[in-house]
Formats: sequence, C-alpha cells, structure tokens
Amino acid sequence: MPQITGHTRLFGILADPIAHVKTPQVMAEVFARHGVDGVLVPMHVAPDGLRQALDGLRMMRNFGGFIATVPHKPAMLGLCDAVEGDAARIGAVNCVRRDDDGRMIGAMLDGIGFVAGLRQAGIDPGGARVLLAGAGGAASAIAFALAEAGAGALTILNRTAAKAEDLAARVAQAYPSCAAEGRGDAADVGGYDIVVNATSLGLRAGDPLPLPVEALHAGQVVAEAIMDPEETPLLAAAAARGARCHPGLPMLRCQIELMARHMGAIGAAAPAPGPGG
Amino acid sequence: MPQITGHTRLFGILADPIAHVKTPQVMAEVFARHGVDGVLVPMHVAPDGLRQALDGLRMMRNFGGFIATVPHKPAMLGLCDAVEGDAARIGAVNCVRRDDDGRMIGAMLDGIGFVAGLRQAGIDPGGARVLLAGAGGAASAIAFALAEAGAGALTILNRTAAKAEDLAARVAQAYPSCAAEGRGDAADVGGYDIVVNATSLGLRAGDPLPLPVEALHAGQVVAEAIMDPEETPLLAAAAARGARCHPGLPMLRCQIELMARHMGAIGAAAPAPGPGG
Repeated sequence: MPQITGHTRLFGILADPIAHVKTPQVMAEVFARHGVDGVLVPMHVAPDGLRQALDGLRMMRNFGGFIATVPHKPAMLGLCDAVEGDAARIGAVNCVRRDDDGRMIGAMLDGIGFVAGLRQAGIDPGGARVLLAGAGGAASAIAFALAEAGAGALTILNRTAAKAEDLAARVAQAYPSCAAEGRGDAADVGGYDIVVNATSLGLRAGDPLPLPVEALHAGQVVAEAIMDPEETPLLAAAAARGARCHPGLPMLRCQIELMARHMGAIGAAAPAPGPGG
Repeated sequence: MPQITGHTRLFGILADPIAHVKTPQVMAEVFARHGVDGVLVPMHVAPDGLRQALDGLRMMRNFGGFIATVPHKPAMLGLCDAVEGDAARIGAVNCVRRDDDGRMIGAMLDGIGFVAGLRQAGIDPGGARVLLAGAGGAASAIAFALAEAGAGALTILNRTAAKAEDLAARVAQAYPSCAAEGRGDAADVGGYDIVVNATSLGLRAGDPLPLPVEALHAGQVVAEAIMDPEETPLLAAAAARGARCHPGLPMLRCQIELMARHMGAIGAAAPAPGPGG
C-alpha cells in the first residue's frame, strides 16, 4: 500500500453489510498498476441513510466517486443526477463518478464487465445467438450489454415467463437489431452460440441447474456470472459435453478497470456506451 | 501501509485546503503502533459544505470520526451534537467522534496536546505562574488547558488588551483557582515560571518577537506553539539567556494520540477533562 497523504484522491465502496467486500484490495492493485495516488475505502451505509451519505460525499472535493453494491444498486439509480449508458433501462447503478461541481453521474457496469471479459477471452458476442438464464438484476445488466455488443438474437429464460418477456421487450426496444424474446421454459438449448447463467443457481451446493444441460455441445460457449465457486455444476456439465467454459471471475476483473475509468481515476471518464452510440 | 479491507474502520481529516495536511501519515504510524485496522483519509470540504458533509458522515457506520482543521474549528463547535471538556468555552472543536448512533461528539485537543507535551518533557504546569502571548484560537485552547492542569496564575498578553482580558475572564470563571489576567503590554517577563508563545509571530522570517526577551532567564521554561521553524527567534533568544526551551512539535505528537483516543480508535474514548473533573 502506498502512503496516503493530503494529495490522495478518495474513492469508496458503499454496501450493507460491508465487511465482506474485496473491492478495496482489488482497486488498490489497479491504482498501483496505473500509478494513481488514490485510495478506495469501505463505507458502510444502510438503505435509509443512502441519500444523506451521497449528499455528504458531494461536498468532498477530493472525492472521485464510489462503487455501489448490494443492496444499493436499484436505489442508486434514483439518487444520481445523471446516468450514462443503459443504467436507466437496466434500472440500476453500480458505479458513480463525482464531477468537480458535485454532480453524481451513475453507470451500470456489471453487464459491460461481463462482455469485456468475454472479449478478453476472444469470444465476440457480435452477431451471436445467445441464451441467457435469469431475468433479475445481473441478467438485466448482461442482457443490455450483450445487445449493445451486437448480439444477433437473445433468448431470456426465466421461471416466471412474464419477467423474461418484459426484459426482452425492453432490450428489443433499445436495440431493435437484437431479436430478443422471453421464455418460461428452455427449448433448443443446443441451438445457441453462447449460453449464459445469470441466475443465482450454482451459488449454493445442491442448487438445481439453471437450464437443461443435455443438449450442450462442443460448438458452444457456456458462461457464468457466478464467481464462487469458480466451477459451477453448469460449467462442469458443459465441460463434460465439450463446450468452451467461461467462468465468472473475468467479469469482475474487467469491471474493476471499467469502474476506475468511470470514476476518472484512470484514463478518460469515457461514457458507458448506449444505443445512441 | 497495511491493506485496507471491508473490515477497516474509516477516519478523516476535514480541511480547506487539504493538500498540505500531514495527519494521514502521522495517524497511520499511530494506528500501526497500536495495531488498529483503521485508515485516516483526507476530506477536502469547503466551509459552505461543512454541515452537509458532516451529515453524510453520520450515515457511515464504519466511520469513527475526524479531525477538523483550518478553517473549520470554530464552525465545527456549532455542528456537533455534544462537546466534551472545554470546547464550548474555547469556542472551537478540532476532533469529532462518531458514536454508533450517528451522533457527533466534539472535543478541542490543541491545548490538551500542548499540556501533554509539557508533561511528557517533565514540565508540570500545576501551580506554575504562566505568561501566555496571544489570545486567538490556539491561545484560547492553551489557556483553558493550562488552567485545567492547575496553573496557579495566568497572564494573557495581547496587542488588543480587551481580547486578552476577555479570555482571562472566561478562564477565571471556569477555573476560579487560576488567577487569570489579561494585559496589552508585557511587564515582568522574568517573573513567570513558564512563558508560552501562542501567537503566529515566529512563523515567518522577519516577524517581530511575540514578547520582550531581555528578562528571560535560566529559571524559566519558554515554550512554543509554532512547529515550523522548530527553533523560532523567541526560542533562540530564550536559549541564549539560559532558559529551558520547549519547541512546538511535541504538542502535535501528543495530540495525535489524544485524537486517536477521542475518536475511539485506540483505548477508551475518555472524555477530555473539564472544570467538573
């Protein structure tokens, strides 16, 4: 850890609870690699104190921004002064930049990080047919990011079909070039280029599989949003059938750099891409 | 620097400007020495944002407290929920503890740090006759701390006599056992056990001396509140006349531990002593 001085820029992670977060350590590595005189510190804020905490941070002129995590991502959308990219469509913000005038500019980088992780592994979602399991927060972020990355077709699979159909309709409206549909049951699992699990199934031992695995095959990529365990039962089943497996960790690694960039700690604070360009 | 994790308690220093502060480095040494998993970070807050910044910090449950420095010390008195010791009488707060319920508890430790520095050097103000040059913020804090430490007599010297008389009257009211008087001119400089400079004279090269030095002698302690330069013209003149010199730095070193204690980072958050005991 480099020394903190009066010149050091301040960044935070807002969460409740806070003790489990690993972002301070991971961001310290990013700052060290880029020669940034900054420090990211844990800020334990409960939901009912979120607005007041945010308003306080506006007044700290050496405060660059923060990462928002559970349970603050949906609420943060309504508290930001502006959002970039698809955050409003996704309905959540997980990274906030404090501009010099105190304005708080949000972005939702979960899905963009997932796509960056795919690309870093040489997997291009452009033109791909994608099956996405889940229609919750993580799945919404990934759905919009896949569509933004040029996925040709996106089938969203969710036990409650209406939720999948609603997400698909919102994706299709923002990205008409992506043929998005929602389903309550999995048909033709073998018919997709990329299969993604964005449910929480696989997090706990004994969870059912998020989708039927029998039809998975060697011509497919099977990707996880779950980071721990690194090999979920889905990935194990996919590997057994010869599919290319993409674990959840690269999403986190890619996202931390995107977050540092959004907060202006490294490089230019490039806006997250949206349908407009 | 130890690693910052989700378990690390957060502390701050609020100042405007901020870049020159050295407290993050000094407190990092204190935390390391005491094995505290905490970090003190710079928070650049302008006067018009002070209340809002403070209200935001109330909502951070892992935030232990902060140091307030120029220009925030007088304003902080009015923003705290309660103050300990003589802070209200001095009219300033320089250290604030955040209690678990979000209440902000202020203390003014400048003078207490000065007295602790004297004591650490084996100089006991108890029963002493003290000449104090200055009646501003630093002098007020030192005057009350000397009286609380049992100084028998305190002469406060200030170009504007009324300001010295006012401070002396407030000290005498709080500590009737201390014979406090205010003066506009220095008489009988050789008649005191301890002579203290709490003006800013000596900070800049070419400053006039804060008091006449001709009568200083080997039976006296001459103490500085100025830290840089370490040997002021007053101390040089005192040394030349055989007086025992006490520089300004120990005040800072002692105070940083008092601050860590007030914020609950080390030991018990013992209340700063006041006239009540």
